[in-house]
Amino acid sequence: MKTRVFITLKPGVLDPQGKAIHHALEGLGFSGVNDVRAGKLIELDVDDSTTDSDIEAMCKKLLANTVIENFRIERGS
Amino acid sequence: MKTRVFITLKPGVLDPQGKAIHHALEGLGFSGVNDVRAGKLIELDVDDSTTDSDIEAMCKKLLANTVIENFRIERGS
Repeated sequence: MKTRVFITLKPGVLDPQGKAIHHALEGLGFSGVNDVRAGKLIELDVDDSTTDSDIEAMCKKLLANTVIENFRIERGS
Repeated sequence: MKTRVFITLKPGVLDPQGKAIHHALEGLGFSGVNDVRAGKLIELDVDDSTTDSDIEAMCKKLLANTVIENFRIERGS
């Protein structure tokens, strides 16, 4: 079963990668961009027997740094 | 307007970061994970006047490397 984990920086945490992307977009002539935040997307292919709490444990122990990052789990088919 | 861009490696492209995550999950005792692919999530806050084709141009010119990556755009509110 495909499961996607979206990892984003918490509001207020500085994001130099996002800032660099924002600056580069402006340099390329794209106006109208107010803010850019960079995050991660991790696609897991797990057995059907894997529970939601297993995935949450993976996020808390390894995939996300919960001090500075939020994570959201989206279970697919 | 919030817009999210999901960037994933094309099938067949080697993903050492995903492999490392997979290996680390196994090392932590999480069984039942068959595959892991790592991607990027870029959240843009753009003016309402920004069109879909503007976002697509940003992806093609800067955000994604279309030789090895696919991108998907999700427009929010």
